[in-house]
Amino acid sequence: MKNNTVLISSRIRLARNFANMRFIPVMTEEEKENLKEKIHEKLKKNNPFSLDYINMESLDSVHAGALIEEHLISPDFNGNKKGEALLINHGEKISVMVNEEDHLRIQVLGNDGNLEELYSKAKALDEYFDGMMPFAFSEKLGYLTCCPTNLGTGLRASIMVHLPALTECGQIDNIAASFSNIGLTVRGIYGEGSQPSGCVYQISNSVSLGVSEKEIIKLLEKALSQLEASEKKLREKLVRRPGVEDRMFRRYGLLKEARMISSKEATEYLSDLRMGACEKIFDIPADKIDELSVKIQPYNIMLVEGEKADGAARDRKRAEILRNALSGN
Amino acid sequence: MKNNTVLISSRIRLARNFANMRFIPVMTEEEKENLKEKIHEKLKKNNPFSLDYINMESLDSVHAGALIEEHLISPDFNGNKKGEALLINHGEKISVMVNEEDHLRIQVLGNDGNLEELYSKAKALDEYFDGMMPFAFSEKLGYLTCCPTNLGTGLRASIMVHLPALTECGQIDNIAASFSNIGLTVRGIYGEGSQPSGCVYQISNSVSLGVSEKEIIKLLEKALSQLEASEKKLREKLVRRPGVEDRMFRRYGLLKEARMISSKEATEYLSDLRMGACEKIFDIPADKIDELSVKIQPYNIMLVEGEKADGAARDRKRAEILRNALSGN
Repeated sequence: MKNNTVLISSRIRLARNFANMRFIPVMTEEEKENLKEKIHEKLKKNNPFSLDYINMESLDSVHAGALIEEHLISPDFNGNKKGEALLINHGEKISVMVNEEDHLRIQVLGNDGNLEELYSKAKALDEYFDGMMPFAFSEKLGYLTCCPTNLGTGLRASIMVHLPALTECGQIDNIAASFSNIGLTVRGIYGEGSQPSGCVYQISNSVSLGVSEKEIIKLLEKALSQLEASEKKLREKLVRRPGVEDRMFRRYGLLKEARMISSKEATEYLSDLRMGACEKIFDIPADKIDELSVKIQPYNIMLVEGEKADGAARDRKRAEILRNALSGN
Repeated sequence: MKNNTVLISSRIRLARNFANMRFIPVMTEEEKENLKEKIHEKLKKNNPFSLDYINMESLDSVHAGALIEEHLISPDFNGNKKGEALLINHGEKISVMVNEEDHLRIQVLGNDGNLEELYSKAKALDEYFDGMMPFAFSEKLGYLTCCPTNLGTGLRASIMVHLPALTECGQIDNIAASFSNIGLTVRGIYGEGSQPSGCVYQISNSVSLGVSEKEIIKLLEKALSQLEASEKKLREKLVRRPGVEDRMFRRYGLLKEARMISSKEATEYLSDLRMGACEKIFDIPADKIDELSVKIQPYNIMLVEGEKADGAARDRKRAEILRNALSGN
């Protein structure tokens, strides 16, 4: 069962490279195309995870942007780009980026905190690809990766967490510092180099070498339960402050009625709404708010409105989506 | 039929003084008490307008403040004050201030633009009081009053108008200047020396000498229809501006959900709501908004919550009143 007070989603990512093949930075265009084609061919013959093959060169920036907003591909994995491919099972939230930083980036997302289960899924995918061609593996170092930070297990386990009370009470820097000491990194909403948005953070293991997969997962699970406890404690006080309660309700009213709203403003207000929903102030499932938070992102709106929808048109559509979603409440 | 696009209420006020009696500034306390008592006695014997007699000395500041907010007494006519009395028929919106600036200030309020009818009512009251004791009247100057600006007819006819579009488009100063040329004064919401609030203004005749009652009333009626026309023209454009439409809806949402709201903020938002209601954007009768605008004033809230209700308690109650009134919409 998902305890979604804090948790929005969790993710397991495995970085893998094939043996007897040059690594991405020194690969030629032709080699990249060959790898893509090879995988595509294998997939046509045996596709146990029902992965769709997408040649990123033929994917427009709107569809690519929407996948980034859904956290199914990394922000660097853009559309209209040569040499890359995406294998995806959208419904199952499985994605494999081919020729991103490593030959393969196997990702499995979930919206409960069961990282163990996600890891099992990722491991099954791992074995499937290992069966295609052997991976670059050293007895001493483990899986070889392009960047040394991914060496070893090649595993990055991460949780995306909503921490409005800890943010408002100025606790995030302290948390990031103490997490850093135990091998965890606190990042923005789109991972490395991104800013937090709507009080949402990504927390993941800092190193993948010298620790076992099990240890990494345990570490994240421990972090999640710690965050849940401290966020809960602060939230209970915070939402009882008259000014905060009033602000939450005003923003709720505003989201239900606005005719134009920017992504930044909507995200900020939905953060308050989510906190209020978890604290039983609003009768809206947190899951629904999490879905909305993605649906109102620019590329997701362009998916509906067309890529020519400018900022003003998106702001109007965003307001309409929010009104329709919240009007029943 | 009331055309309430612009008009909130209208008022006829007659300033009268009794003959053979000193005027207010030179009256002794005893003389004031005698006058009050005399009127009270007469009233007990013959009270055709069902006026309640209120000795202002025994009226607390909360009840007095609420009457000011309803425009039934002037802001100078405070509670707990010696020498003054109020004769009032609350339901009929008739009030007579005894010993304010003049011996009598006869007022009749209405919320349609029929100043003629209000004047007839005021005239009937005028005759009733004239029957008690003769008024100070000069064949040359007409009714004698304490301040020369009220000499002659003693009549001030006024309309309280809501001009959000003209305000937003910066037209009020122009209007005030051109009205000044034709003998009209534009004032704030509580008349002389007060500020406009929620884009509401009081417009009344500047002089009462050398013009007939009929001419004064005609002048106000002409001003009202001019304001209706120019406000309407601007409003139609204004509410179609995406930013204005969005602002109106946001404020509507906010009024429906806020848990604390100041009088100033609520008044500002209700002004937008009223404009939207008149333009059929919101399905709320303008009359209902006008009533709300009074109910959310500080003294009206203290009437309900008790005079010890501090600013924060009033802000909470105000938000509750607004929520309850608008929640059905």
